[in-house]
Amino acid sequence: MGFGVVEKIGSKYRACSFGCLETPSDMSVPQRLDELYRGLREQINGCSPHFMAVEKLYFGRNTTTAENVWQARGVALLVGAQNDLFVLEPKPSEAKITVCGDGRAEKSQIQRMVQVILSLKEIPRPDDAADALAIALAGLALLPTSTIGRR
Amino acid sequence: MGFGVVEKIGSKYRACSFGCLETPSDMSVPQRLDELYRGLREQINGCSPHFMAVEKLYFGRNTTTAENVWQARGVALLVGAQNDLFVLEPKPSEAKITVCGDGRAEKSQIQRMVQVILSLKEIPRPDDAADALAIALAGLALLPTSTIGRR
Repeated sequence: MGFGVVEKIGSKYRACSFGCLETPSDMSVPQRLDELYRGLREQINGCSPHFMAVEKLYFGRNTTTAENVWQARGVALLVGAQNDLFVLEPKPSEAKITVCGDGRAEKSQIQRMVQVILSLKEIPRPDDAADALAIALAGLALLPTSTIGRR
Repeated sequence: MGFGVVEKIGSKYRACSFGCLETPSDMSVPQRLDELYRGLREQINGCSPHFMAVEKLYFGRNTTTAENVWQARGVALLVGAQNDLFVLEPKPSEAKITVCGDGRAEKSQIQRMVQVILSLKEIPRPDDAADALAIALAGLALLPTSTIGRR
């Protein structure tokens, strides 16, 4: 699960933290979900964000991958609620519009723009982390100012 | 989310607790997931089970309902891991075989057999609670004895 924590200071954006929560594939699904739960809590405790953006997902077909992604997403939403965070669910197209001004932008364009907007020396890696930073920026763009601090 | 806690004493089965965790439909999904999380923990704290059985689900198509069910299922699996419970995932057909000896048994037959096996005065209500008790009985039947007490 990619994650990215973004701070807005005036008109500037800064990445507080980003990366990917990885869990061993030989671990049971319940234990992997607990690893994600702890990893997300650690990020929230470290950065004290005011809201959370969790990517809205679309799957063409119900596969085992989709099931596990939805289950992990349930854990992310839960962690948001347990930390009294207002939770937004930007669509991938909204992240593309926020970052590139084009809802059909290519992955490489998004990664490059995330790097520019956040003044990062390199393109954020892995891809899931760059995606998460784009979703976080979309969340900031979508956030009604009045909702900061409440869920 | 239906739940059912079953105890095996010798060759007899007893229902410690069963029911349905309901959450207000006007509550946000993250908050509803937190309600389920708390409700499940309460049941586990109250009954101190040795393992958990979470129904294996099948959906023909990815609908909003399916997404929310998978997200809730992720929370159930998480609670299992956080309470050091061995988690089994019986299929609906396995519950039908355990309870009725027939993987294609009708809902009414299953409910009646759950009532008989657990010596309940009435058919457990709501339907989700009866389903959960059948899954719990299937879990007991599937459980390798050696796994009791560890996850």
